[in-house]
Amino acid sequence: MSQNNLQTLKGFRDFDVQKMVLRNIVINKIKTVFEKYGFDEIQTPTIEYQETLLGKYGKEAEKLMYLFEDPGKRKVGLKYDLTVPTARFVANNPNLLMPFKRYQIQPVWRADKPQKGRYREIYQCDIDIIGSHSPISDAQVIAVIDEILKFLKFPEYKIRVNSRKVLFDAMKKSNIDEKDWLNVIQSIDKLDKKTKEEVFEELTKKGFSELQINKVFENLQNAQPDENLQKVLEISRDLGTFNNIAFDPTLSRGLDYYTGAIFETVVTNPKIGSVTGGGRYDKLLSALGGPDLPAVGTTIGLDRIVDVISELNLWETPKTNTNVLIVNFSNELVRDCALLSSELRSLNINTDFYDSTEKLEKQFKYADKKGIKWVVILGNDEIRENNLTIKNLSEGYQETLPKLEALEKIRASLLK
Amino acid sequence: MSQNNLQTLKGFRDFDVQKMVLRNIVINKIKTVFEKYGFDEIQTPTIEYQETLLGKYGKEAEKLMYLFEDPGKRKVGLKYDLTVPTARFVANNPNLLMPFKRYQIQPVWRADKPQKGRYREIYQCDIDIIGSHSPISDAQVIAVIDEILKFLKFPEYKIRVNSRKVLFDAMKKSNIDEKDWLNVIQSIDKLDKKTKEEVFEELTKKGFSELQINKVFENLQNAQPDENLQKVLEISRDLGTFNNIAFDPTLSRGLDYYTGAIFETVVTNPKIGSVTGGGRYDKLLSALGGPDLPAVGTTIGLDRIVDVISELNLWETPKTNTNVLIVNFSNELVRDCALLSSELRSLNINTDFYDSTEKLEKQFKYADKKGIKWVVILGNDEIRENNLTIKNLSEGYQETLPKLEALEKIRASLLK
Repeated sequence: MSQNNLQTLKGFRDFDVQKMVLRNIVINKIKTVFEKYGFDEIQTPTIEYQETLLGKYGKEAEKLMYLFEDPGKRKVGLKYDLTVPTARFVANNPNLLMPFKRYQIQPVWRADKPQKGRYREIYQCDIDIIGSHSPISDAQVIAVIDEILKFLKFPEYKIRVNSRKVLFDAMKKSNIDEKDWLNVIQSIDKLDKKTKEEVFEELTKKGFSELQINKVFENLQNAQPDENLQKVLEISRDLGTFNNIAFDPTLSRGLDYYTGAIFETVVTNPKIGSVTGGGRYDKLLSALGGPDLPAVGTTIGLDRIVDVISELNLWETPKTNTNVLIVNFSNELVRDCALLSSELRSLNINTDFYDSTEKLEKQFKYADKKGIKWVVILGNDEIRENNLTIKNLSEGYQETLPKLEALEKIRASLLK
Repeated sequence: MSQNNLQTLKGFRDFDVQKMVLRNIVINKIKTVFEKYGFDEIQTPTIEYQETLLGKYGKEAEKLMYLFEDPGKRKVGLKYDLTVPTARFVANNPNLLMPFKRYQIQPVWRADKPQKGRYREIYQCDIDIIGSHSPISDAQVIAVIDEILKFLKFPEYKIRVNSRKVLFDAMKKSNIDEKDWLNVIQSIDKLDKKTKEEVFEELTKKGFSELQINKVFENLQNAQPDENLQKVLEISRDLGTFNNIAFDPTLSRGLDYYTGAIFETVVTNPKIGSVTGGGRYDKLLSALGGPDLPAVGTTIGLDRIVDVISELNLWETPKTNTNVLIVNFSNELVRDCALLSSELRSLNINTDFYDSTEKLEKQFKYADKKGIKWVVILGNDEIRENNLTIKNLSEGYQETLPKLEALEKIRASLLK
C-alpha cells in the first residue's frame, strides 16, 4: 500500500506534540482543581451494549451514533456522552458511598457534520455530585468552574446562574399557561444571542400577545433568586467566586432535564461564548435507567478551550517538554555526555542527547526548531576544566561556567 | 428500561475511583520519566480507515479487530495497536524533525477471548525514537525502562538484552541453513519458560540433529555482544542502568520485525514475567505503509503492571485523592466551613465538605470508608478561640489546635 492512502478519518484528528503539550497543561490543571474539591476520577469503556445507549438521547441523536456488531456479533456502540455510562456505573455499584463525587475526562463519538472546530471524537470533561440535594454541592461545582476559569486567564468571563424555579415563577406571574412555559423559555433562552426585539418577534409568531410578552420580560427583569438559589450563590461566593458569578433570570439552557439551579460560563473577552454548562438534574439518572438519585454537575468544553487558546495564541506555550539538548561532539565523548545527561535528569531537567556527531550547526538547529530552550556543550576543554558551555536559545547568549553553576542556572530558569 | 439490563460489555471494565488513583500514580510517573528523556506525547484517533488497518497484522489478528461502517458508510475500525497509527502519523507529517521521539498512552481494541487479566480494551504505552540509527537511541530507550522499573519498586527484575546479529551469528557458526534460522530461534526463545531438555526435544522433533542442537547451545552460551550492542550496553550503563541489564544471547522475542537490538524486562520477584518488550525495527515503518525510517522503541505493559500491583497489594495506595473532610455541624456554620475549605484548598490540600448536617458519626464513617485521612471540625468553640479540631483517621488521634498550627500539621503530613 502506498503512503498516500494513509489518512486520518474525516472529522478526526491527531494531536501532535505541540497540541499535546498545551492539552496536558490544561488537563492536568483541571484534574488538580477537581481533586482539590474532593472529586475522584473514574473511567468507563469506549464501547457499551446498544441496550445501554439506545432510547436515551432521542432519535436524532441516535443517527449520529457509531453502532455496530463486535466480532462476537454483539450489538454494541461507541459511547455518545459520559452521563449514560455514569448512570450504568452507579447502577452497577450499589454500594457506592453517597454523595459520590466523580470526574471523568474521556472521548465520546458523534458523527456530526464535520466543520471548523467540530470533530467526531470529542473529549468530554464532566464533574458530578451524585446523591446530594444540598446547595453546598451546587456551590462546590460552581467554585470548581470558577477556579478553572481563573487558571485559564481569559480576561473577562461570567458564570451566569439561574434556576428552573425562577423561570417557572416568572411564567406563572405572567399568566402563561403551564403547557406553554417551555415554549416561551426556549425563546427567552436566545436573549444572549439575539436582541430583545428579535425574541419579541419570535414570541409574537408563536402566538403570544404583546401584553403577555411584556409581562414576561418585566417579571424576568424583576426576578430574584429563590431561597435555595440564594444559598447556592452565597456559599459559592464564600468558596471564592465573588463577583465572577451573576444571577441571570433569562438563562435557561434548554431546560430539558434540569430540576433546580442552572449555570453556564460565558467568556466575553475574547468573545468565545459558552465554555461550561451544567446544573441540577435530580431525575436524570433514573430516566437513563440508573438509580433514583439527585445529581448536580457541569461539563467543561475542554476541546473548545484548548483550541481557542491555541488559535488565538492566548498563552505562551512551549513547543516541547524537553528543556535541554546535549550536543554530540565526538564519539569519544559519548559516555561523558551520557553521564552528564543522567546528572541533568536527576535534577528533573528534561534532557535530550543528540544521537549522532552531525555538524554542530545542525544540532543547534534541531534544538531551536524543536523549541528546546537550552543547549549544553561538553567538549574536551569543558571536561578538563570541569566546566559546561551553555547556550540559551530563546535569549541568544552563550557562556562557559563551572559545571555546578551551569546546572543550577538551567534548573533555576525552568522554575520561573 | 430496568436497571438490571445495564452491564459493561464482556471483556471490558470500568476503572473505579480506587483503580484510577493507582493508575494515575503509575501513568503520571511514566510520563514524567518519558519527558525526562526527551520524549513528547502524541495522540491519534480511536477510529481509522480500514485501509490503514488491514493487511498489516496478518489474517489471525484481523479476526480480532473491531471493523464496521460509520454512520456515513465509511469502512472503519478501532485501532489495534499504536504502531500503525504512528506510521500513518509520520507519513502525514513529512516535515517532522528527525529524530522524532514520541510517546503514546492510549487504548487499543482486540476481541481476544476474555480471561482473567485479559481485556478487550487494552492501554498500550509506547515510546519510540524514529529516524535514528544510533546506539545512543537504543540506550536511551533502555534507560527509560530501567528508571520506570526502579520507580515501580519490584524487588527483582532484569532487562535482558540481545541482538538479531548475535542470534544469526550463532546459527551460522552452528551450520544451520539460513532458511532454518527463524525456526531454530523460535524454539530457543522458549528457554525462559521451558527447560533446556524440553527445548532440545522440540528441536529434535523439528528435525535437527543432536550435534547441531548441541552446537547451537554451545555457540549461544559462548556468544558475545556484537560491536553495536556493546555500545548500547555501555551507554545504557552510563545512563544509570548499571547491573539491571544483562546480555542474554537466548532472547529473541519472536524476531518478526526486529533488525538490531532486542530487549525485554522480566520481573522475577514477584514472579510476574515480562512487563516490557522492544528493540530496533528499522524496516517496520515502511512495511506498515509509512516512510522508510529506522526506529527503536519499547512497549510497557501498563495494564498488567497496574493490575499486579493492585492484586498483590504491592503498594500502599490511597483509596481517594481527597485529604480532608470538613464536617458539617449546623446550617449556621456552613459559610464559615466554606471559607475554611477555601483556606485548605489554597494550601493544595484536597478538601471535601460534607453536604448536610447528618449525625457526626455518619460523617466520620463517610470519611473513613472513603479513605480520607483527616477530618476537620469547626464548631462554635473553635470559631471563638480561632482553633480547629482535627482527627487523623488512620492513626486515630484527635486534638484541638490553634488554626494555623492545625493547617500546618495537615499540610506537613501530606508531604511525607
